[in-house]
Amino acid sequence: MKAIVNVYLKEGVLDPQGKAVHHALGALGFENVSNVRVGKQIVLDLQSSSEEEAKQEVEKMCETLLANTVIEDYNIEIVQ
Amino acid sequence: MKAIVNVYLKEGVLDPQGKAVHHALGALGFENVSNVRVGKQIVLDLQSSSEEEAKQEVEKMCETLLANTVIEDYNIEIVQ
Repeated sequence: MKAIVNVYLKEGVLDPQGKAVHHALGALGFENVSNVRVGKQIVLDLQSSSEEEAKQEVEKMCETLLANTVIEDYNIEIVQ
Repeated sequence: MKAIVNVYLKEGVLDPQGKAVHHALGALGFENVSNVRVGKQIVLDLQSSSEEEAKQEVEKMCETLLANTVIEDYNIEIVQ
């Protein structure tokens, strides 16, 4: 089973990496871009018996390690 | 219009960040995890007139800036 976790900064939290990418895109001539946010995508291979169990376990991982819930949100998608 | 770009290391390319996360999860008692890969998720707000145009533009951005195509693959999703 595979879990895809997207971790991204909450709305309103400054994203310097996104700002840098936005600036660089502008310098390269891409003028159509109005905003850029950069987050993390973590792909986990799991040996869980059920989708429900996998989701609960990954949620615990997010709360304890994968995301800083003070400034970051996350979403979890279980595939296969 | 929004474009979601996922950039991830190609199969076979060593992922030290993923290895570190895997190790840390093991230390926290999450034994069900067999592999971890860490990539980037870049969310772009675009002012393109059509979905097709947006996709082509974002593909160019990936090739020139967002991904290092020697070691990374990417996929593009246009939403809204």
